[in-house]
Parts: sequence; structure tokens; C-alpha cells
Amino acid sequence: MAFGIGLLAFLYALFMAWYVSKKSAGTKEMKEIANAITDGANAFLYRQYKTLLPVVVVLLALIWYFVNMNTAIAFVVGVLASAFAGYIGMAVAVKTNVRVAEAAKKGIKNAFELAFRGGSVTGMSLTGLGLMGLAGLYAYFNKDLGPIIGFGFGASLISMFARVGGGIFTKAADVGADLVGKIEKKIPEDDPRNPAVIADNVGDNVGDCAGMAADVFESFVVTLIAGMLLGLMLKSAWLIELPLAIGAFGVLASLIGTFFVRLSGKKVMGAFYVALAVVSLLLLGFTYWYLTLPSSLQFEMFTSITYLSVVFMGILVTLFIFVITEYYTDYKYSPVRSISESSKAGAATNLIKGLAVGMRSTAGPVLLVVIAIATSYYALGVYGVALAAAAMLSMSGIVISIDTYGPITDNAGGIAEMTGASKKVREVADLLDAVGNTTKATTKGFAIAGAALGSLALFVAFAEEVGLTTVNLLDARVSIGLLIGALLPFVFASYLLDAVSKSAYKIVDEVRRQFKTIKGLMKGKAKPDYVRVVDLSTAEALKELVVPGLIAVFTPLIVGLLFGPQALGGLLAGAIATGFLLALFMCTAGASWDNAKKLIETGMHGGKGTAVHDAAIVGDTVGDPLKDTAGPALNSLIKVINTVSLLFAGVVLAYGVHLLGA
Amino acid sequence: MAFGIGLLAFLYALFMAWYVSKKSAGTKEMKEIANAITDGANAFLYRQYKTLLPVVVVLLALIWYFVNMNTAIAFVVGVLASAFAGYIGMAVAVKTNVRVAEAAKKGIKNAFELAFRGGSVTGMSLTGLGLMGLAGLYAYFNKDLGPIIGFGFGASLISMFARVGGGIFTKAADVGADLVGKIEKKIPEDDPRNPAVIADNVGDNVGDCAGMAADVFESFVVTLIAGMLLGLMLKSAWLIELPLAIGAFGVLASLIGTFFVRLSGKKVMGAFYVALAVVSLLLLGFTYWYLTLPSSLQFEMFTSITYLSVVFMGILVTLFIFVITEYYTDYKYSPVRSISESSKAGAATNLIKGLAVGMRSTAGPVLLVVIAIATSYYALGVYGVALAAAAMLSMSGIVISIDTYGPITDNAGGIAEMTGASKKVREVADLLDAVGNTTKATTKGFAIAGAALGSLALFVAFAEEVGLTTVNLLDARVSIGLLIGALLPFVFASYLLDAVSKSAYKIVDEVRRQFKTIKGLMKGKAKPDYVRVVDLSTAEALKELVVPGLIAVFTPLIVGLLFGPQALGGLLAGAIATGFLLALFMCTAGASWDNAKKLIETGMHGGKGTAVHDAAIVGDTVGDPLKDTAGPALNSLIKVINTVSLLFAGVVLAYGVHLLGA
Repeated sequence: MAFGIGLLAFLYALFMAWYVSKKSAGTKEMKEIANAITDGANAFLYRQYKTLLPVVVVLLALIWYFVNMNTAIAFVVGVLASAFAGYIGMAVAVKTNVRVAEAAKKGIKNAFELAFRGGSVTGMSLTGLGLMGLAGLYAYFNKDLGPIIGFGFGASLISMFARVGGGIFTKAADVGADLVGKIEKKIPEDDPRNPAVIADNVGDNVGDCAGMAADVFESFVVTLIAGMLLGLMLKSAWLIELPLAIGAFGVLASLIGTFFVRLSGKKVMGAFYVALAVVSLLLLGFTYWYLTLPSSLQFEMFTSITYLSVVFMGILVTLFIFVITEYYTDYKYSPVRSISESSKAGAATNLIKGLAVGMRSTAGPVLLVVIAIATSYYALGVYGVALAAAAMLSMSGIVISIDTYGPITDNAGGIAEMTGASKKVREVADLLDAVGNTTKATTKGFAIAGAALGSLALFVAFAEEVGLTTVNLLDARVSIGLLIGALLPFVFASYLLDAVSKSAYKIVDEVRRQFKTIKGLMKGKAKPDYVRVVDLSTAEALKELVVPGLIAVFTPLIVGLLFGPQALGGLLAGAIATGFLLALFMCTAGASWDNAKKLIETGMHGGKGTAVHDAAIVGDTVGDPLKDTAGPALNSLIKVINTVSLLFAGVVLAYGVHLLGA
Repeated sequence: MAFGIGLLAFLYALFMAWYVSKKSAGTKEMKEIANAITDGANAFLYRQYKTLLPVVVVLLALIWYFVNMNTAIAFVVGVLASAFAGYIGMAVAVKTNVRVAEAAKKGIKNAFELAFRGGSVTGMSLTGLGLMGLAGLYAYFNKDLGPIIGFGFGASLISMFARVGGGIFTKAADVGADLVGKIEKKIPEDDPRNPAVIADNVGDNVGDCAGMAADVFESFVVTLIAGMLLGLMLKSAWLIELPLAIGAFGVLASLIGTFFVRLSGKKVMGAFYVALAVVSLLLLGFTYWYLTLPSSLQFEMFTSITYLSVVFMGILVTLFIFVITEYYTDYKYSPVRSISESSKAGAATNLIKGLAVGMRSTAGPVLLVVIAIATSYYALGVYGVALAAAAMLSMSGIVISIDTYGPITDNAGGIAEMTGASKKVREVADLLDAVGNTTKATTKGFAIAGAALGSLALFVAFAEEVGLTTVNLLDARVSIGLLIGALLPFVFASYLLDAVSKSAYKIVDEVRRQFKTIKGLMKGKAKPDYVRVVDLSTAEALKELVVPGLIAVFTPLIVGLLFGPQALGGLLAGAIATGFLLALFMCTAGASWDNAKKLIETGMHGGKGTAVHDAAIVGDTVGDPLKDTAGPALNSLIKVINTVSLLFAGVVLAYGVHLLGA
């Protein structure tokens, strides 16, 4: 059944992709720009995957040798599925954006609908792919779950590199474009005279689309795997398959939900909230139906209401994460307004205020996750926690559809700007894009909370796998692990920020050079060399991607081999704790700086071109790599360390030197 | 013996205080300014303590009622001792700074010696006070350790509020002064025309001196208490008294070490390293002597070499923390140079780079602490960890002496500037102050690592106190606690940053108002209203200090009462992990931004007045509240939640509702 629903979702996605591609791609000029973006994005993805090939081959050999062949096969399937998910996310987005820019000529309703349809291709295809992969491998391996961990690890690995590489590319290009364009030359964003403008748009696609798609694909897959593994520990086939069933229901509900996204007036966020409500209700309904099936009654340890309430808890997490994140990042509310306000005293107070808002914003999601853990654990023990996580992540289809809408409209706006579209068209594009900023923030909140809950489920599965019944914080090995784990996100994020800073610096140099040497560029009489900036961004991102990736994969193995599974357990918990918090902090702070600037651009505190606006631009620029590079990559980090630990649990047990052993 | 050494240190401090006060306080103008600073600092401290009185009274009543009378008495002693330590730190500093400015007229050697002597008053008096308090109460309560926890909690409580209140004051005034003075009006730091200049100098004393003194006093005391409690668990009087003995040796060694601080040429840091080496050797020697005493031989479970090596490990942590922090914050080395370099592309890249450096800098200290835990645990179990922490903190006397040197020379430089001292005098003051920046950063590193190790020891003591043998991360209650604990430092820091941002904003308004309404101020023909800015800063700091303080004290109690000691254990571990990392990140990032700016001021990348310098000033201003408010306050946070948990452990056990109980 799960495979069937997966296939259905995938077919729907194919149909939608066909539907979108049928639409007009606009004028020759628009097509040219769209092609430049597509070429850049394709080239980057191709070279990124090529760079990863040796890493994948080495890990494949290690898995084959130290674990077994089936796991190695599943690993390769996971790698391919994740890479494909990332590719789809990117390919559809670059196809849709130019068509949305064209559709904007016919008004907001058309453009909105097309943008969302394009987004739904990504959402449905990747959840469909995940379901098919999981259900297919589960059947292929005769219900043996062991090898499926390999599938999860493959998904994690590629997702992490996609997040890291795409994240560095997108922000190096963006920061580079803004620093020279907006701040030095005082030309608008997406101005075609800016040599980094194509690279910036490519970045949106390889970072926000491909990166986000791979990230949530991974969360979706690994959370279901963790739930299934915990079901296995409880020795019930029904409990093993329940997470998969809920995943399938979520995908089906999301598919139906996409038809409920209808714009009335200009309330874009409202349209999305309606769809989320529909999906939630459908998911609850399907689950209730499944729980009351005759075949389910065999398992009467708890009533079906208990299970239903746990699923409901997972849904509530998704919904509240949207509300909380919107509160902290939308300029209708006081947090962002206070950042704008503090920009009046300069960039420094803008930054301090933003840091404070970001840190404060962690409280809501953390307490929400705490409540979800407490209630679902109270209902069904650790299995309940995994089930709530599965329910939450089962909504990935609709969430990613909403998410991908963001970069599509962002690019559409950029293309409209670059091709000198009429004021009316640009207004439509801007209106759609403004909401895109909020949806990107809220779906990022979903991805983070999903990663945290999924990782916690994986952590428990890891403990079961290595036969730990306690991971005792009073044990020195666990405290050591905890500290190293807590350190990991900081070091990892530092590498990414550094990479953006270094790369952006080089792009700034190149952009400045082009402005200086290409005559007539500022006057719009000559064209900049876009390709050179895209190439530079690509080379930089790929150079910087390997070290943090290897740190993420090998630190758990080293700690596990040196100090044993106890210490590794501590490491996982420590990394989840700080990774979760840092990711929330970084993503929210970044989005709120962004919108504080946007609020000023609406005319608040003097509007564009004032010192207040300049101060807000600094905050926005600092926030960019936090919210689009380091923050989201931490999601992948905490999942990949958990899947690598789960996968190599046997190796740690067999080959570890177990310092400080009892 | 410990009491005797404490008394000796205290008498030395009194003598030095007398010696310093005998020196000339300079011209009438200098005295006037010094008096203004003294008055402001006294007024702030007085009002801060008055604000805390109700909190202390309520807690006193709670302790008396729920714990016992002796503990309540010890709590009051702890409160008074900590408040007194803070007062001494401040009072001596404000006396010394003007005399250093005067001594600078006679050359660098004189000024340096006097500044360090002044610093040593703080260092020796507070460690002396701590030893006397501990040893005195230990004797007074007939070797009953229970009540002494109250002493530790009293010290923690006041230290936290001192850190928070002083930290907000100092940075609100500093940021306020810089934003208008340096950035808008382009007048130098410490220019007497700036209405916030006296408030800024008051801030150095109430924040850096009083706050740091109370912080390290607390670490010193609570670490020894934790060690003694763990000795009690091992049921050996010798092991109970060993941490106290090591504390006493450290104080004695520090006292002797102060005589070895001699300036040769201009190598100020060199002079301090010599003293540290002397103290380390003496501490090792005293410990060895003690371990080989006939009375010690009764305890032959381990050889004396094992104990000695654990003490050595603690010493190594102190020494390496100095080296690592110096590397990340001194502009001789690449981290700070890279921040300066990235300022060339503007404030945003300067900030991103600084964030990256701050995050990366956490690795060294964390791994150092991990190694210290691993080795000392390997040698002597958890008791070993506490002993290493005690050895590390026993060096507080010399470290605080070095630390207080920083704000003293900073103020001396300010006074020289404000009174229009000759260029030669100002050069001497600047030279001394430049090193002060580095010493402040390195001693802050010491305070953080000390707080982390001390808190870990307290955490273990807490577990023993409530009878937990495992704090199992696989238990949902522990994961819940861990997440809430990890959240606590973020929320706490957010309140502090917000407080600085809000207060600074009000001070900016006031300073701008004075520049606008007081005629002739910019031309130096009229005097600004310094007192008004001091009053404003005081009122703001006190208003903002209560909420974060109450969150820190009551969150552990609430979590403990709701979810039981297991969850509380998780909370403590989570808070130590993120608190330790955030504190390291914030303090190092802040110091490295500061020195990146200073490097540019030496003429690098164009020097003062360039766009590069402006960019670096933004970084410095953002870093200020991180390194002087939020970061250091996290030290106090992680200690106070541990002492409050330890103190109310019985209450948690007796009155908790224990949700999710097994």
C-alpha cells in the first residue's frame, strides 16, 4: 500500500511537471536568463555529485566490508534517491520560475497557482520517492530492516553535502552580489548590471530548492526508519509497519491537500494554512480508519485513541511550528519590528537585537518538542516519540510544496526585474515573493524540528542497536561524549560561515573587478560576465564542502571507537541538543533580520536609502549565511551523525578500544 | 591551616590596599574624575544590592523553612562574602586606576607595578575570603558539610546578579558612548566631551572588576565544595579535606607568585606567564609535600603520584586555556588578523568572520576539558574530576590579580585621556591597556573553563545528593531535561543582549540630546551632564536584572518538581553543555572583534578613519555585550542552577509530582 501511494504521489508529480512545462516561458530575453540559471544550477549539481563520488565509493566499500552487502545496496539506493530528490527540487524550480514571471502578466491568481503547482512537484516527488524506496526495500529484503539503515545513511550523506555545498554557493553569491551591488553601487537587488546576479539566482535553486528537498527527504526517510526499528524492538510486525503507514497517509493527505490551495484575494499565507488544516484532518481520518481495521485489532495493548492522540501530537508540532516561526519572522509582529526600530541607532544595535531575538525564538519550538516528547512518551513510551515524529514528518509533502514556492517566486521576481518587466508584473512578483520569505522561514522551522525529533528517534534506535539500556550522564565517558557532541555543531557551523565569508570575499573582488574593467557596465551598455561568477562560486563551494562533511561523518566513528558506545550515545545527545538550538537560533535570527530590512523598505523609519536602511542591510547580510547555510546544514549534521552511528554500531562494538571502560 | 592561609592572603590584600592608597592620586582634575567614577560605582553597587535584598530574604526564608537553619546561616554568609568580594574588586580598582595614571608619568615600570599590585588586592582578598569562609564554616558546623552548600549557593546567587547587573550597565554605557561618540561624532574614546564617558568607566569597574571578582570567587568556592562533597561520598575525612588543602596551597602559591611579576622591557604578557609558571610549580610542590606527610599515608588506595598527576592536569588546563585564548584573541595570530582582513569588504563580512572565529575557538577549550576529565577520571574516578577542577580553580588568586590589571589600566588610560595628559603618559597607558585586553580575554577563558569543570563536579555531587546512580539519556524525562537545560543559556543570554540593546538605545538618545541641547559641548566649552547618564545606566541595569535572574533560579526548581530529579539531572547537563560553549563562543568572538579593530588602529588596512575601520567598529560594538555581558553571565548561570539544585535536592524529592515517573 505504501509503495502504491508513493507511486501515486510520484505520478502526480510527473503530471504536474508536465503541466508546468507546458506553460509559456515568456519572451526570448526571459528564456535566455532562465537558461543561464538552469545551466549554472545543472553544472553546479553535476560537479557537486562528481566531487562526492569518491566519498561515496569509500563509504560503500567500508559498509560492504564491515556491515554487509545488502546494506551496501540499500546505501547506494539511498544515495541515488537523495541525489535524485535534490535534482528534481532544483530542476522543477528552474523550469517554473520563468513561467511564473510570465504568468504574472496575467495577474496574481495565475502566477500564484503556477508557483505552487511547481512547488508541489518537489513536495510530492520526494515524499513519493521516499515511500517507494522504503516500502520497496522493505519488501525486497523480506521485511529485514537491517539493510534499510543503509538507505537512511545514503539519504543523510547526500543531504548533508547538498545542504553544505548548496548553502555555501547560495550565500557566497548572495552576499557577494549584495555587498557590491546594494551597498557599494547602490543598485537594486536582481539588477542585471550586477555580475553576480545569475549566480545569486542559481544559488536559490541549488541551496533553497535542492538543499531543502534533500534535507526533508532525509528527515522523512530516517524518521520512518527509526520508528520501524523501534517497532522491531517491540517485536510486533504491526508496530513495524505503522510508521510506514502513517508516512503513506501523510503523503496521500498532502496530495489531496494540494488541491485546496486556492488564492482568495491576496491572502497567500491564508491559502497555505487552509491546506495545512485539510491535510491534518485527512491524516487523522486515515489513521483512525487504519487503527480501526479488523487486522489492527490484534494489537490491543493500547486503545486506538492512544495511537491517534500521538499522531495528533505530531500534527500539532507541525502546525504550531508554523505559527511560532511566523510570529518571530513576520514583520507584522513585535520581534521583527523591534529589530527595525533598533536599526535607528546603527548596524551594531540592529545586530545585537537580532541576536537576542534569534536566541529568544528558540524557546517556543524547544518547549513544543518537549511537550510532544512528554505526551507521546507518556502514551506509548519511546515508540510513541518516534510515532509522533513520523506523523509530523509525514506532512513533508505539503510542507515542501509550500517551501519550494518561496525560491520559485524569488527567482520569478528576479527574472521580472532583470528583463525589465512592467511595474504591474513586478508588483505581483514582489507580493508573491514577500510571502515566500515567511514560508521559507516557517518551513525551515519545520525542517529543524523534524530533524530534532527524527534524530531523537534515531538516537534511541541506536541505543537499542548497540544494546545499551542506559546512557548514563554520570559516566565520565558519556560526559565526554556529550561535550564533544555539543561542540560539533559549533565547529561545523564555523567551517560553513568561514567558507561563505571566504568565498563571498572572492566574489566581491571579482564583481568589483568587472565593474572596474568592463566599460559601460554601470550604465547598462555592456553585459557583465555572469558565467565567471557562477564558476567561481561553484569552485569555492566544492572546495569548502569536504572538510566539514568529513568531520561530521568521522567524529562519531572516532569517538565511538575510542570510548565505546556509551560515549557515542553522549555525543549524539549533545549534538542534537546544541544542533537543534543553534539551527533554530540561526534560521530565525537570519529571517528576522531579512524581514526587518523589508519592513524598512516599506517606508518605515525613513525607508530605502537612509542610514537606518543601511544598518538593516548589514543585519540582513550577516543573517544570510546563518539562515541559509550554517543553520539548515545543522539539520543534516545531527541526522547524519545518528545514521552513521546506527550503521556502524556493530563496528564500534567489535573494533573499539573502549578507553575508560568500566 | 586553610583558614590561616586565607587570613594571610587577606592580610596581604589589606596591606597592598594600604600601599596602593598611599600613592599619589595626581592632579586635582584627575581626582575629580576619579571621584566621579568612584561615586558612580558605589552608587550602582549600593542600589544593586538593595534591589537584591528582597530576593535574598525570600530565598533565606525558603531555605530556613525547607532545608534548615544552619544552611540558611551559611547562605547569608555566602551572600555577604560574595557581595563583599565584589565590593573589594570594585573599590580597589577605582582607587588604583587614577594612581596608575599618575604613576605613568614616571614611566612604564612604575605604572605597571602599581596596576598589578592593585589587581592583586582583589585576587588575594577574594580567595582569602573564600578560604576563610569555607574553612571557618567547616569548623563551625563541626565538619558537617550539609550547611556549606548554602554558602556556595549564596556566593552563586550574588555572583550571578553581579555578572548580570554589572554586565548590562557596563555595556549599555559603553555601546551608548561609542555609538554616538566614535561613530556619529567621530571623537575618540574616553573623550571628556562625551556625556557617557564617566558611565563607561564606571561600567568597567562594576562589570569587569566587581562582576569578575564575584564570578571567580563563586567558582573557587563551589568547586571546593563539590570536591569536599564527593570526598564525603567516599567516606574519607582525608579526601574531604584534600580539595580544601589544595585550594589553600593554590592561594599561598599565588601570593608568593605575585612577587615574581616583574616587568623586563615591555613584555607585559611575559611577566604574567613567569608568575603563572612559578605558581604552578609551587602548587605542585606544596601538594607533593602534603601527599607525602605521614598523616596522608593512611590513604593508600592510590599512590601519591596519582593524586599529583590529577593536580597537574588541573594546572595544565589553566595554562593551556591561557595559550589557546591568547591565540584566538591576540592580533599577532591569524584568527584576529583574518577578521581585520575581512573588514575590507565591510561590516557584514567582518561580523560573519568573527562569528566563525568565535565558534571555531570553542574546540580547544572543550577538548582540553575533555582530556582533563578523561585523565582525572581514569586516575581517581569522579572524585578525580573534582580534584582537577579544584587544582585549576586554586590558581584563582593569581589569575584574578592578572585579570583586574585589565580594567585598572583601561580606566587609567581613560583618566589620562580625559585629563589631557601628555602624549608620553598616554602612550604608556595605552601600552599597558593593550595587554589588558588580552589578559581580560584569557582570564575570561579561565573563568569559563573553571565554571564548566566546577559545574560538572557540582552536577555529580547533585546526583549523589539525590541518590541517583544513573541519569539515563534514554529516559524521556532526562531528554526533556536536557533540551530545557540546553535552552536555558540561549534564553538567558537573549534577555541580557536585549537588556543591553534597550538600555544602550536609551543612552544613545540621552547622549544625542546632550550634544544637541548643551551649547558648546562639541567645542569643549561646556561640560556634559555625566551624572545623568550614570543614573540612567543604573536604573536600566537594575530594571533588566531581575527577570533573567529569576528564570535562572526557578527553572531548575520547576523542572525538578514537575519531572523529578532525573529530569533535573538532564537539565543540569544540558545547560552546562550549551552554557559552556556559548560562553566560550561569545567571549572569544567579542575579544577577537575588539582586537581586530585595534589591529586596524595600528595602521593596518588603512588605519583609523577608513571604511575598514568603521566596519571593524561595528564588529567591536556587537562583540561588546557578547563578551562582557551575556558570555560571562553564562558562567554564573551554570553554577547557580547547580547550586540551587543541590540545595533544594531534598525539596525536589519530597514535594515533586514526578510526571512521567517510571
